Amino acid sequence: MEGRERNAADPAGPVALDAMGGDYAPQATVAAAIEVAESGIDVILVGPEEILLEELDRSSADGSRRGRDGVASRHVRGNKPQGSLSIVHAPEVVSMGDDPLSAVRRKRRSSVAVAAELAASGEAVGMVSAGSTGAAVAASVFKMGRLAGIQRPGIATVIPFPKRPLVLIDSGANVECDASHLLDFAVMGALYSSAVFGLEKPRVGLLNIGSEDAKGAAVHRRAYRVLAEAAKGPFADTFEFFGNVEGHDLPEATVDVAVTDGFTGNVVLKLCEGLARALIAEIVTSITRHTEGESQRGAIQALLDLRSSVNADGAGGACLLGVGSLAVIAHGSAKAESVAKALRFAASERAAEMQSRIATALEELHRSSRRSAKS
Amino acid sequence: MEGRERNAADPAGPVALDAMGGDYAPQATVAAAIEVAESGIDVILVGPEEILLEELDRSSADGSRRGRDGVASRHVRGNKPQGSLSIVHAPEVVSMGDDPLSAVRRKRRSSVAVAAELAASGEAVGMVSAGSTGAAVAASVFKMGRLAGIQRPGIATVIPFPKRPLVLIDSGANVECDASHLLDFAVMGALYSSAVFGLEKPRVGLLNIGSEDAKGAAVHRRAYRVLAEAAKGPFADTFEFFGNVEGHDLPEATVDVAVTDGFTGNVVLKLCEGLARALIAEIVTSITRHTEGESQRGAIQALLDLRSSVNADGAGGACLLGVGSLAVIAHGSAKAESVAKALRFAASERAAEMQSRIATALEELHRSSRRSAKS
Repeated sequence: MEGRERNAADPAGPVALDAMGGDYAPQATVAAAIEVAESGIDVILVGPEEILLEELDRSSADGSRRGRDGVASRHVRGNKPQGSLSIVHAPEVVSMGDDPLSAVRRKRRSSVAVAAELAASGEAVGMVSAGSTGAAVAASVFKMGRLAGIQRPGIATVIPFPKRPLVLIDSGANVECDASHLLDFAVMGALYSSAVFGLEKPRVGLLNIGSEDAKGAAVHRRAYRVLAEAAKGPFADTFEFFGNVEGHDLPEATVDVAVTDGFTGNVVLKLCEGLARALIAEIVTSITRHTEGESQRGAIQALLDLRSSVNADGAGGACLLGVGSLAVIAHGSAKAESVAKALRFAASERAAEMQSRIATALEELHRSSRRSAKS
Repeated sequence: MEGRERNAADPAGPVALDAMGGDYAPQATVAAAIEVAESGIDVILVGPEEILLEELDRSSADGSRRGRDGVASRHVRGNKPQGSLSIVHAPEVVSMGDDPLSAVRRKRRSSVAVAAELAASGEAVGMVSAGSTGAAVAASVFKMGRLAGIQRPGIATVIPFPKRPLVLIDSGANVECDASHLLDFAVMGALYSSAVFGLEKPRVGLLNIGSEDAKGAAVHRRAYRVLAEAAKGPFADTFEFFGNVEGHDLPEATVDVAVTDGFTGNVVLKLCEGLARALIAEIVTSITRHTEGESQRGAIQALLDLRSSVNADGAGGACLLGVGSLAVIAHGSAKAESVAKALRFAASERAAEMQSRIATALEELHRSSRRSAKS
């Protein structure tokens, strides 16, 4: 953590973790919480108390001295700062099969809803969930509210392409979007890119099926005009509009931010993960046939390095942008390592700054657009 | 060409080539036509006569004995069968910037429209275009008509994933689709897969953002039901419905055919091309750093082999399915080699069989569905 006002030994507050979210919960979530607590991050485990206590017990039975002792207490062992682990009881769980919207409405005390509530109230600096994306989005929107001027919060994912990482927004929150939603995504994606990668005026592209402005469906043609106008007018300092980008442009660092609906974005994101995995596996097989000895080990090592660098899971989680607090959505198949990365990101000053810069910028933009509408 | 009734020395007829279509036309198209004619395939070059004659002259000035002599004549040199090259004059050209639909309507004597007409009338066995996809689709639909029961012809592309090639349909003809169009694609994609890959009952998946049947937008939920019912009822012998597939499933040989709208399909196709290129380039760099000498050469060779196997252009072209004749759409950036592949495919017995099997099957299905609707 690169702290200015805040550092690992003195975090601003705990991160709320939906301890029941994800394919490997609660094992992976509890293990991740224990791991990051050791590096000084406070974590609130949210879920059914009995299940979580049992899981903590099991973890401590693995030979560590953690477990129940670690709950709701803060240890300092030697010079190593250690964060606290606490539990907030949430008896219900939203499963992958549930309809997200109605499940979050119906199960008011679900782990994901309570985690979002803790972040919304300020008791936590943010929330992390590896559960149903739809449920995490719905819970965040309900509990945290939306930022000024934002109709549709969107998920920003960083895809670690070899040349340069790309911010893809929306990668799954909204299956259908109109042009004004795509403008929201452009603005938030650019602010995110500025805050996380330090870019001054990120280049934003509209994902489409051709470079010409008349390509795509009616929504893309409208969005092209709306984005082009916004980049010349009210958002001139926020982003530069590159125009349309196509599928093959995404890995080429043509733009810093690619804007699309959540359906296309989700397909793109998962295809990148799957194709990188498939190609690297194929290349390992092929290299093994063509080389031997020391050089083979070199080649395989090169591939393993690449695999870990292109593993989209490496970022630990995507951010739901446009809601009132920090919401980090980890991969449903996240194991402890990935959940730990998401927790570290959520606890970082960079994340807090990103969230506050987006909130401030949107507030200002909203105010000035209301002023200009009145004049 | 694997001929049963037909073979290279005795083709059923010429292929009509939109000689002005594509980024590298007419150089690449004329060069491709000359190349395949040498292996016994008859080609009709369609475009402005003067331009094409000039290009043929230029090609013959390159030291070959082709050129004007080759036009509208058939040579047999020794035992090597040689096809004929002829020109059909089409004075107009549809460019990438034109609105496809109105351009095809307005420019009645454009190269793409005349090429489609030749295939429709039977003067050619099929047409090949590397020009604007929208124009090739519009010209094919106008000139060739649609097959029985098909509302929306769709483009079937074979993506050469390392594990197994995948048929993706629609990869760009229709930016917006409803559930019944997606059913058309499923049926045609399965028939294509059967004809080209010899699969008895291909597995068809619906591209979506989750595996559960309630995932996606309303159109995907409807399509899920329509496809599931069709695979149990009238199309029980044609395909098996696997259910939803996600982006990461595509390279994993989970299904033989993936069905989606032309917007998502086009993004998927281009992303696969771009990502494979980017990853392989990155790995070459990385391998060069980690290895040396003989083994480095081995590793690089392995990568080059893989690159040519995953180059989507390798197939030479995609087929527009659901129109009355064979329409092969090559990549806009196709060079002579790719156009030649598309011409060879269009002239092959496999392509003719595929087209006729789809036409026959749709005719039968349409007839039996009308019968069952009456009873």
